[in-house]
Amino acid sequence: MPRVLSTSLPAHVGATVTAAGWVHRRRQLKSVTFLILRDAAGLAQVVVTADDLRARLAALPEESVVEVTGRVVDNPAAPAGVELVDPAVRTLGDPAEPPPFDVYRPELTAALPTQLDHAAVALRHPRRAAALRVSAALVAGFRATLDRLGFVEVHTPKIVASATESGADVFALDYFGRPGYLAQSPQFYKQMLVGVLERVYEVGPVFRAEPHDTTRHLAQYTSLDVEFGFVTDHREVMRLLREVLAGMLDRLADVPMLYAQVPMLHAQVPAVPAEVPAVHFSEALAIAGAPPDEPDLAPAHERALGDWARAEHGSDFLFVTGYPLAKRPFYTHPATAPAPSGSPGRRYSNGFDLLFRGVELVTGGQRLHRYGDYLAALAQRGEPVEPYAGYLDAFRHGMPPHGGFAIGLERMVARLLGVANVREVTAFPRDLHRLTP
Amino acid sequence: MPRVLSTSLPAHVGATVTAAGWVHRRRQLKSVTFLILRDAAGLAQVVVTADDLRARLAALPEESVVEVTGRVVDNPAAPAGVELVDPAVRTLGDPAEPPPFDVYRPELTAALPTQLDHAAVALRHPRRAAALRVSAALVAGFRATLDRLGFVEVHTPKIVASATESGADVFALDYFGRPGYLAQSPQFYKQMLVGVLERVYEVGPVFRAEPHDTTRHLAQYTSLDVEFGFVTDHREVMRLLREVLAGMLDRLADVPMLYAQVPMLHAQVPAVPAEVPAVHFSEALAIAGAPPDEPDLAPAHERALGDWARAEHGSDFLFVTGYPLAKRPFYTHPATAPAPSGSPGRRYSNGFDLLFRGVELVTGGQRLHRYGDYLAALAQRGEPVEPYAGYLDAFRHGMPPHGGFAIGLERMVARLLGVANVREVTAFPRDLHRLTP
Repeated sequence: MPRVLSTSLPAHVGATVTAAGWVHRRRQLKSVTFLILRDAAGLAQVVVTADDLRARLAALPEESVVEVTGRVVDNPAAPAGVELVDPAVRTLGDPAEPPPFDVYRPELTAALPTQLDHAAVALRHPRRAAALRVSAALVAGFRATLDRLGFVEVHTPKIVASATESGADVFALDYFGRPGYLAQSPQFYKQMLVGVLERVYEVGPVFRAEPHDTTRHLAQYTSLDVEFGFVTDHREVMRLLREVLAGMLDRLADVPMLYAQVPMLHAQVPAVPAEVPAVHFSEALAIAGAPPDEPDLAPAHERALGDWARAEHGSDFLFVTGYPLAKRPFYTHPATAPAPSGSPGRRYSNGFDLLFRGVELVTGGQRLHRYGDYLAALAQRGEPVEPYAGYLDAFRHGMPPHGGFAIGLERMVARLLGVANVREVTAFPRDLHRLTP
Repeated sequence: MPRVLSTSLPAHVGATVTAAGWVHRRRQLKSVTFLILRDAAGLAQVVVTADDLRARLAALPEESVVEVTGRVVDNPAAPAGVELVDPAVRTLGDPAEPPPFDVYRPELTAALPTQLDHAAVALRHPRRAAALRVSAALVAGFRATLDRLGFVEVHTPKIVASATESGADVFALDYFGRPGYLAQSPQFYKQMLVGVLERVYEVGPVFRAEPHDTTRHLAQYTSLDVEFGFVTDHREVMRLLREVLAGMLDRLADVPMLYAQVPMLHAQVPAVPAEVPAVHFSEALAIAGAPPDEPDLAPAHERALGDWARAEHGSDFLFVTGYPLAKRPFYTHPATAPAPSGSPGRRYSNGFDLLFRGVELVTGGQRLHRYGDYLAALAQRGEPVEPYAGYLDAFRHGMPPHGGFAIGLERMVARLLGVANVREVTAFPRDLHRLTP
């Protein structure tokens, strides 16, 4: 008999079907045992009155895996409005050892380190599992939007020869007797591939040997990277990012079980305005009440900007454009439009950040595309050319104006779900202290 | 004026449009210069008769990036049946330095190491670029098939605490002062996540410190990993694999430019039989003319089996089931059906390989799911339990019968395209000798 998932049981009222899953919870009353079965789709209630089966279930701890064949009957009080009666139960393995914490409670009460130590079990909690589904839905929306626009997915090296892009915080490894490093981003590769495919994206791990133990940093996270050519300037990149974000968030509605399992999520899915408000870096400082010569935005400034965007524009999102060139990587394109009048005299860029509810969510911009500009930018920063030779090949031999952005997946999920620690939405996080499981 | 891609020009005959791309080739005749423009979609011919523009083009080497505004006219002899006349040409950067080899010739004539040294340019060759598009199409088909079947995409750690799974050929790194290793596969993680989401897949890099310099091995490749629960045995895994492969190959037809750019591909896209033929390992040895007590299939055996599958079943694909348990990883489920009569007395497994045209393409099988079986399997191999503690947690606390498989993306692309060296279909390959670009 083919298996029926819990959420499909209402379509089988009156029939005898087979369900399967984990013993989520047993409620053993005086004359009846309720077995709550958990499967990939949700929960199903099984009503057990036979004494021999009740005795067997008493010896079958939570998380044991079972197959239940029973008759589907209406019961408005049960999950999904139906329950299984007159069941036969077959174990699909040995009885589980009782888990180190209760997976069936509305919240996992174990401390986060305990949850992470026992991730294989903690992730079974519907809230933790739902975060993984939210993550998958966002990535599916990311790809669907870009595929529709003619982008090609690529896969680039995660082991590189030099610790070039940002210098610090790289993992070093032994590469067949030579030094190698884990890539901090696919930036150089996605740019080179713009020269090949014009429009590319990559979903993949990036590595930061981040020596700080914070709620926002992971040693490995999933970066959603986009790069495309023949742009006029950064504003075209911002328009694409707006469309990609909308496509990602739209996809959440297609995950039917999300709202049932994560009731808090529904209220927090933000609307993406047709035109996301944008302010120049100089204006942003003024709005945040910061001195006009500040070199960068501090977290408090970003929070103030988030409040302002909500109050003035009713938007959870705000672009800040024209970041000072000195604060952006060497491949950043200088500003192609004048800064607002009254801005301090310094070099601005076509680099932008996207703030979401007052916190930076995405960094992007237009990049340099002329070989000579790269040589000048490296020289100005006192950096040698040689480690970049393979990368610079692309610009030496013809590259269009281009730009792109990168979204940190786990941070986005955490912010959407209102979760304080990014580790709570990552299946098996890696950080300063954690390398297992 | 919005840009029109080369393949869309036929829809604009009579109109003046703007195209943009790379100078693929210039053919400078006595009174006319033909500029072949290359963009993401293909090639477009531009007819230049004005002397001043011809002089400018003479100083604009191949691979320079230009924007061309001109009138679209019919010309059956031109690419796509149209060409641009009376053009205005604007450069979108500096003139390119001439590339180290001609990108416009039907074949790249430079030696492979030279191509790989200059990957940013070599990949622009339509054949090399097409391989990247084939790769993306296969992955899109992989995901679409699995998404339709309720699988959830996951992202798992690429840095792990112990070199456990296969022992040899791992990259070691310094993880905040402790030893860490690059993951050779997501096997343990995808199994643990079956306990959470039932059906999972991952597309991601895996790392092998492969000390041999062969045409088939890379130090990093893209693994397409699948794992799912509540299976009866390995045959259910094989049925899923058949559906996934068919979905991947179907997707190739959706990439419109593939056949124009890679004419050889069309003839080589294999049909996936509704039921892929399968032979037991013992039968496979007999078919290959090997002694019945051989421990494994050698490449020559696989070739003989490929010939047999084509001759007997008209199939490019052949499953070999029931591999001897001793040759498979410890998590492999023992055979649940008897071996064919006459098979030598040894322990067989529910592990299988899929051969494609006589070469192994996929490995998969049913896995152990009982905690006690894992302890026994590790004990039998003389392996300690402790390094596997986080993984074994899943089985200790209830796991369903499950199985899965892994496809090496670059190998599959190479075999589909009839390319001898896997480096030719990888954007930026990593091997024993190569860590750049």
